[in-house]
Amino acid sequence: MRKTIIGVMGPGELATETDIKNAYKLGKLIAKEDWILLTGGRNAGVMNAASQGVKEIGGITIGILPSNSDKNVSDAVDIAIITDLGNARNNINVLSSDVIVACGIGLGTISEIALGLKNNKPVILLSEDRESQQLFKRLSSDLTFIAVDIKQTIQLIKDILKTVK
Amino acid sequence: MRKTIIGVMGPGELATETDIKNAYKLGKLIAKEDWILLTGGRNAGVMNAASQGVKEIGGITIGILPSNSDKNVSDAVDIAIITDLGNARNNINVLSSDVIVACGIGLGTISEIALGLKNNKPVILLSEDRESQQLFKRLSSDLTFIAVDIKQTIQLIKDILKTVK
Amino acid sequence: MRKTIIGVMGPGELATETDIKNAYKLGKLIAKEDWILLTGGRNAGVMNAASQGVKEIGGITIGILPSNSDKNVSDAVDIAIITDLGNARNNINVLSSDVIVACGIGLGTISEIALGLKNNKPVILLSEDRESQQLFKRLSSDLTFIAVDIKQTIQLIKDILKTVK
Amino acid sequence: MRKTIIGVMGPGELATETDIKNAYKLGKLIAKEDWILLTGGRNAGVMNAASQGVKEIGGITIGILPSNSDKNVSDAVDIAIITDLGNARNNINVLSSDVIVACGIGLGTISEIALGLKNNKPVILLSEDRESQQLFKRLSSDLTFIAVDIKQTIQLIKDILKTVK
Repeated sequence: MRKTIIGVMGPGELATETDIKNAYKLGKLIAKEDWILLTGGRNAGVMNAASQGVKEIGGITIGILPSNSDKNVSDAVDIAIITDLGNARNNINVLSSDVIVACGIGLGTISEIALGLKNNKPVILLSEDRESQQLFKRLSSDLTFIAVDIKQTIQLIKDILKTVK
Repeated sequence: MRKTIIGVMGPGELATETDIKNAYKLGKLIAKEDWILLTGGRNAGVMNAASQGVKEIGGITIGILPSNSDKNVSDAVDIAIITDLGNARNNINVLSSDVIVACGIGLGTISEIALGLKNNKPVILLSEDRESQQLFKRLSSDLTFIAVDIKQTIQLIKDILKTVK
Repeated sequence: MRKTIIGVMGPGELATETDIKNAYKLGKLIAKEDWILLTGGRNAGVMNAASQGVKEIGGITIGILPSNSDKNVSDAVDIAIITDLGNARNNINVLSSDVIVACGIGLGTISEIALGLKNNKPVILLSEDRESQQLFKRLSSDLTFIAVDIKQTIQLIKDILKTVK
Repeated sequence: MRKTIIGVMGPGELATETDIKNAYKLGKLIAKEDWILLTGGRNAGVMNAASQGVKEIGGITIGILPSNSDKNVSDAVDIAIITDLGNARNNINVLSSDVIVACGIGLGTISEIALGLKNNKPVILLSEDRESQQLFKRLSSDLTFIAVDIKQTIQLIKDILKTVK
């Protein structure tokens, strides 16, 4: 039976300390809800921190890697999907997630938010970045959600899943 | 010998009248410079208008289509690249362009701006959308250029090509 | 920690009864070894039968879908990766598998065998098709393995995993 | 107006002398017919030789590159489409071609023949490889054509274009 997949997207090497902390805690709470975590899979930033959080609780992690091998995979990824698609894999990240959480902001993350909304996926923005919040809220008001903290993020995911599933 | 390719990205069905007019004129000027136009190829909005402008002058147009056939291709596209990649083809659009012009703003266009900048491609924003201008200028100040009109866009392309090529 | 993934590829709608039976039994044995099954994910032929076999034992199944939604996913798939890549997703199928089993022969399966070998992945041919056996054995003798039945297939996977991992 | 595109696929580094000679001559004849040539774009084997043949006559060449830059592009490619898709770009090669010619045999070429036929594209096999001829003729008899030389290849393309277009 199809498992519920929560995608956590966010900066890699350029992630802030807050992004990393949020991602880690988010991973733990996602695992506690028995949802599966999907990230970009690399051993960096938000992808890695969220996956580490999940494994702390013993949950399951999927990593959708841009490369043609598992060389740079996070060691907290259970299931590595090797795409060799570069950044084109971002579209797979969002299509495969029931709900997308953008934890922090960066160029790759913005592409994922935009592709998610374009594919009619609900996207939760977990950051204090006002410009991106306003931009996406304006372009897709029904599917863009803004969360001030982890707790609200989890509550939003639950609310969204009730309507999506 | 490698031809210079200018990518013109922009909304499809949701393009404004200004976007369409700009795209058409931009196509004409691109053809006059003997550059090749690359778009998303569909028979809609900015993609179609820019291609029509090029053909008015007799230039060459490439369309990178998201679908698995040429059913929705603009009739102003000379060379149809059929990708069957959906929105993942946006990454090909930007990688294949020497300079990218975002003519208007929409979710697909935002994904292309973000992917372009992430791939270290110069991107010219031709729109009056302040939020996206500020967001991308902040995230990638060296590669984000802002143009107030078609004339400045063409001048920016010329300046950029001198340094890129 | 990275889980071992066994990819089972084979015809969809055109699968023979033997292909289906083999795929189902193979799925059961894969689950018994605690390996994760990866298939093309659709509700047809070898993909579906192998996934059903795994679920009979309570194992984990991944489906890499060609479409942009989960409309045609097998109900025996736990983790649906939605690629919207059409047949280009075949390359992901083989890159993400530690060992590939081609269960039966068809055009899609041939593309997967060829892409697997080109990406230096070990491929086991489980079919009586002499032409494809000879062709791939000639083009990639070290990575092409031929199995006469399910039991030998599992033994070959074990032997290969010892050298690959 | 849509231009007719002929895809010439074949081995890169492993191309035989015969493959290279055939590809070069084929390129010249394709250009004489005013068709556009599409190849995998790299500076190797059949891709490069066919493109060189076209440029000898002054025709137009498209190269669909697997990499994320134009570093390994053949200098006979006019229009470089940079995909960053690795071997997944093979599906684009075949989808974008009105007729596909497999000039020689290798693993990548086999994946392209199989993907071409699966996508209902006509494929001409220009090689003396009996196994692949029999295999593909059996799996897709209506769309698989066998040519003994360049002249017959061109004649087959003409015949096929009459029915396809």
